[in-house]
Order: sequence, then C-alpha cells, then structure tokens
Amino acid sequence: MTIYNFCAGPAMLPTAVMRKAQQEFCDYQGLGVSVMELSHRSSDYMAVAERAEQDLRELMGIPDNYAVLFLHGGARGQFSAIPMNLLGQGKALYLETGQWSVAAAEEAEKYGEIDRLDLRCESQTLDLSRIPDTAGYTYVHYCPNETVDGVAMFEIPEVQAPLVADLSSCILGRELDVSRFALLYAGAQKNIGPAGLTLVIVRRDLLGHADPKCPAILDYTLAAQHDSMYNTPPTFAWYLAGEVFQWLKQQGGVAEMAARNRAKANKLYDFIDGSDFYQNRVAPGHRSEMNVTFQLHDAQLDQRFLAEAEASGLKALKGHRMVGGMRASIYNAMPEAGVDALVRFMDEFARTHAEAGRA
Amino acid sequence: MTIYNFCAGPAMLPTAVMRKAQQEFCDYQGLGVSVMELSHRSSDYMAVAERAEQDLRELMGIPDNYAVLFLHGGARGQFSAIPMNLLGQGKALYLETGQWSVAAAEEAEKYGEIDRLDLRCESQTLDLSRIPDTAGYTYVHYCPNETVDGVAMFEIPEVQAPLVADLSSCILGRELDVSRFALLYAGAQKNIGPAGLTLVIVRRDLLGHADPKCPAILDYTLAAQHDSMYNTPPTFAWYLAGEVFQWLKQQGGVAEMAARNRAKANKLYDFIDGSDFYQNRVAPGHRSEMNVTFQLHDAQLDQRFLAEAEASGLKALKGHRMVGGMRASIYNAMPEAGVDALVRFMDEFARTHAEAGRA
Repeated sequence: MTIYNFCAGPAMLPTAVMRKAQQEFCDYQGLGVSVMELSHRSSDYMAVAERAEQDLRELMGIPDNYAVLFLHGGARGQFSAIPMNLLGQGKALYLETGQWSVAAAEEAEKYGEIDRLDLRCESQTLDLSRIPDTAGYTYVHYCPNETVDGVAMFEIPEVQAPLVADLSSCILGRELDVSRFALLYAGAQKNIGPAGLTLVIVRRDLLGHADPKCPAILDYTLAAQHDSMYNTPPTFAWYLAGEVFQWLKQQGGVAEMAARNRAKANKLYDFIDGSDFYQNRVAPGHRSEMNVTFQLHDAQLDQRFLAEAEASGLKALKGHRMVGGMRASIYNAMPEAGVDALVRFMDEFARTHAEAGRA
Repeated sequence: MTIYNFCAGPAMLPTAVMRKAQQEFCDYQGLGVSVMELSHRSSDYMAVAERAEQDLRELMGIPDNYAVLFLHGGARGQFSAIPMNLLGQGKALYLETGQWSVAAAEEAEKYGEIDRLDLRCESQTLDLSRIPDTAGYTYVHYCPNETVDGVAMFEIPEVQAPLVADLSSCILGRELDVSRFALLYAGAQKNIGPAGLTLVIVRRDLLGHADPKCPAILDYTLAAQHDSMYNTPPTFAWYLAGEVFQWLKQQGGVAEMAARNRAKANKLYDFIDGSDFYQNRVAPGHRSEMNVTFQLHDAQLDQRFLAEAEASGLKALKGHRMVGGMRASIYNAMPEAGVDALVRFMDEFARTHAEAGRA
C-alpha cells in the first residue's frame, strides 16, 4: 500500500531525497563516514553547506545584498531573534492572521514596544485595508500562510516599513519577490527538511544592531560573519535541506512547484466545494495552497474518518488540536497522486456514510 | 579498508546505531514514513521521545527531582540559557580550564555579574586549590573535559554553591553522581547523536526563575512544563540519541563504557609516552580520556602525517585550529580496534620518518 503522509510538520520530504539520503547515510560520497559524522569545518562538509546556500539563492532569486543564515531551532527561536536583532528602541507592527502570527507577536512583546493588528474578519477572511500607515515602525511582521486554519495572505502587504515574514509553511511553494522584504525566515520541517533548522534571509544593512543580551546562537550578525558556523550548525538537517533544494531544481524550480501546488489545492478545494458532506470555511481568496482544512458535516464521524483514512494509507489528517476537524498538508513533497488518493477516499467515505445516514 | 573517524565533533556514532537508522530511515517500524516525518505529537513519536528519556535516566541514574530536557542547538545555546535561567540578580563563578569554559564565561557576562577563575598552571595542569569559598555564588560553572587541549578535570569540585557542568564531550563516558549537580548539559554531537540537540538535566527546584527576556526556546521552565515540546523539537536527532542510549545499555551501560574508554586512552597515552617521536604535554592526572592530543617531534611532518593517516583510513586527526598538532577523539563510539589501528600507524610512521631523519 502506498502511504501518503499529510502531516503539517514535521512533514513528509520528497521520496527521492529520502531514498538518496538513506543510500548514502553511512557512507557519504565514498568517504566511509556519514555526512553527520563530518566536521562542519572539513572541506567535504563546507562544500555541502555552500552548495545548499547557492541553490537556495538560485531557487528564490535572493539578491547579493541579503545574507542567508542556517540556524538552529525552529521558527519559535526567530520569534525572539527578530526583535532582539532588529527592534532596538523602535516599535514594530505585527499583523495577526492566525495562531502563528499571534504567537510571534506575544514573544516579541518581551523585547520592546509592539503594536498588534488583527486582520481576521467574520467568515474567515482577512481585511488588509486595516493596515495603517507604517512609516513610523521599525518593521512590520506577518505570516503569509497560517497552518492551523489553513488561511493564506497571498498579496505582499504594501507597507513603508521594512517587512518581515514567517515563511515556515510556504517557503519555496510559490514565487516571491525577495527584494520586497527586509527579512524572511522559515523553520525547516514543512517545506525544507527535518525539524531543528531555520533559514533566515536578511538584508545585510540590517545587521549589526543586535541587543547586547541577544544569545550568540540567535545573533544574525555573528552568524553572518561566520557563515552560520559560529557554533556547530545542525549539519545533517542542513545537508538534507540542500538535497531538497537540488530536487526542487530538478523538478523545474519554484515556478513549477507553484503550478503543481495550485493544481493540487484546486483539486481538493473543488471536490470539497462540490460536496455536501465536507466543507471548508475559509474565504476563497485566502485559502492556503499548503494546508487544506475541512470539516465533515457530522463531526461525530471524525474518528471514523481518521481511522479509515489511516487504514487506507492516508496519514495525519487530523486537524490542529486547537480547531479540530481535518487538515491535509500538501507541501512541495506531496505528489498529486496523494491528493488524488485523498479525494477518492473522501468521495467513497462520503457516499458510504451519506447512505448509512439515509438508511 | 576500515575507516576510523577521530573527529572531535560532529563525531562518529556507533556503527550498529547508524546501520539500524539507515535500515529504518524511510520506514520507521512499518509505518511507511520516516521517523523524521512523524508529528512530534503523534503517539508513535511520543513513544520514541519517552523511551529516550527513560533510558538516559537509567544510564545516568538521574533522580526524579531532576527534569531532563531535549532542546534545540548546541552547548553554545546553553552558555546563554544558563545565566538567563539561573542567575537572576546573583553572581556566578566560572572556573576556566580551557577554551570552552572561557567561552561559556564570556557569554554569561552578557547577563549579569560573573567572576572568572583560571585554574590552568604551567605544564598543563590544573590547580583546584585555587577554588575559593563559593557560598556566596548563585552557581559555579565548569567544564570537566576540554576538547581543544585534551584536558580533563576528573574530580568534581567541592563547592558550596549549586554546581553546573558542561558535559558536551564526556557525557556517558564515565560514571557521574548526578545528585552532586544543580544542572548538567551537553551538546549531542560528540557522545550522543547528531549536531542540533542539547541535553539539559536540571534540578526542578531551580526552575521558575527565568529572566523575562529569556527566549522561549531557551526557557527551561517552559521546556519542562511541555516535556520539551513547547515548540517542535529536533525530532530526528532526539530519535538517534535514543538509539545511542539503547546501544549503550546493550553494551553494559556507563560503567562498561568507562572501562573501555580508560583502556583505549591508556593504550594511546602509553604509546605516546614510550615514543621519542610523539609527545603529549598534559599533566598525567588531567589527561582527557575522550580527546587525546599529541604533537610530532618535528611539526614539519604534520601535513605528511595527516595525509598518510587519511590514506590509511584514519580520519580527522588534525588538532584544533587554535593549537595545532594532532588530536584523536575517542568517544564511546570509537572501538578499541580504532585505537589499535592508530597506534600501529603512528608506530610505523615514526619508524619510517625517524630513519629518514637519520639517513
């Protein structure tokens, strides 16, 4: 049975990448040791690290005046690092569109003056017209893809202040004009690699202003000065991220992934919208292409749905514990065949249980 | 050719562990997905996490009044976390025995009042009699094994203040009475697993006093409250650490590893001491059992030594860039056969080049 893993994160990685990593797990390029057993300062490992950065620069079109940092931890570490590196005595604006942007704002409040602005409206839409003049802010933070509700903000907000975005759940999933941002960051465990690695892409002119109490491992300036090797980086996660970048290039890059992701998401949303049995409550212009949430018309069937899905090889469809329902996370690594299998299963489950309801 | 990897870190992991991890890399226990693709909140992963903690508690004899935390990053993250969690308005004493304890003290100085006391004397020995009455200190920090010079402090210092130790390069290498410590910590990449994971073992009564500006990912209280899952932990590294703990139990536990480590180190030091060609400068009572440093009588032969060693399958023997010379890191995962191979090579190299020198 083919298994399709819809986990929101740690998420599935591309099958081809996992097979290659397995094959060379104990013997990287004939060296007789694992890539995770190499010194991070060895020429063999440095080549791994540098290629990963170059491939990411190419995939995202990252201009030279941006540093690319490979740091420890996940996005939550950056919730602290961003104000500690950028805020100084200034004030930042946090746009709230879901649980993650709220969590980022709450953590940032520990470090200085933060204004919080909720963009969420009734009927799960977002009102970007609420965004004020931001010229007085040191930076504006937002999260373009909120995994819990499956809500996306596709437009880059038009702001005067430097813009910071949490791309944890959508990086490399569609094209993005990096030059419109001051800082982009992403925990790896959704679209990049294993948990324990975070990417930070930061305009170099913003470096050099870290809070004196910023822990060394969260200090962007130190990281940039030392090519992310001030301390031992998470070498295996960095390597695996690099393998994912190579795979993305082989697939045709971000534009190709964006087309595939749109096709996968549309297929799933179209099926849900055409069904009386399932529904998605997010306003059409803000439906995530990465995390498709849906509810059964009868929540009492949830456990049965999950058990039968699992038995059919469709794993981790349970919605986030804060909101319940279902969630299919269909990041870059999820093939269209996985979405097809899910739609087939959902269709069959609906027909079986709709009939049972009528009987 | 058998390869022996003497890297100081990221270091080799037990061969049996690496082979098992390779085998189940794409399909963990028949689930059809990798352990790194499992949600950290799934029952399958929770079992992995809990078993790792229980095995570590058993291996080290960790009393119930200590929390065991599996955190992101390496020891450097803890250099910041320790003062941010423990120091408050107090004053701490940092004992300096090498580069790592000095680095820990420098980072701690960002967060409060730190006294630094250098224990290093001429002829690479340590003078523990310099340690003053410590009753007034909030804690005393030291590093029992310094990897750069290969210097160890085997005695636990007799101090009145709560004692904190950086075990990054010696954890599980010999027995330790955990109850004599307030806090123990260790980056994983030497004796535990891949880089990107740090263990913290902390007496629970010390929790609850974190600096309000302590980043959430470095806050021990949050980590303890959430069983190290306040944020997504580095799941694959945690799993691999658990596999190493299982392997250690199968080998006979820490007492058995301690005996093996002593035998390996003695074999190497005895050979060096009996040779005119090599020397180790560390005072006998402070020679590390984990990192054996040595110098060739003629440093001009260093490059040749390293190249020929590499060609013989003996990898990563180059000393730390700050001190030069050679270093053989022989952590738990290094079998005695690796030390035997190294001694044979060193002996042959010495005979060849001593003769060449005379010719």
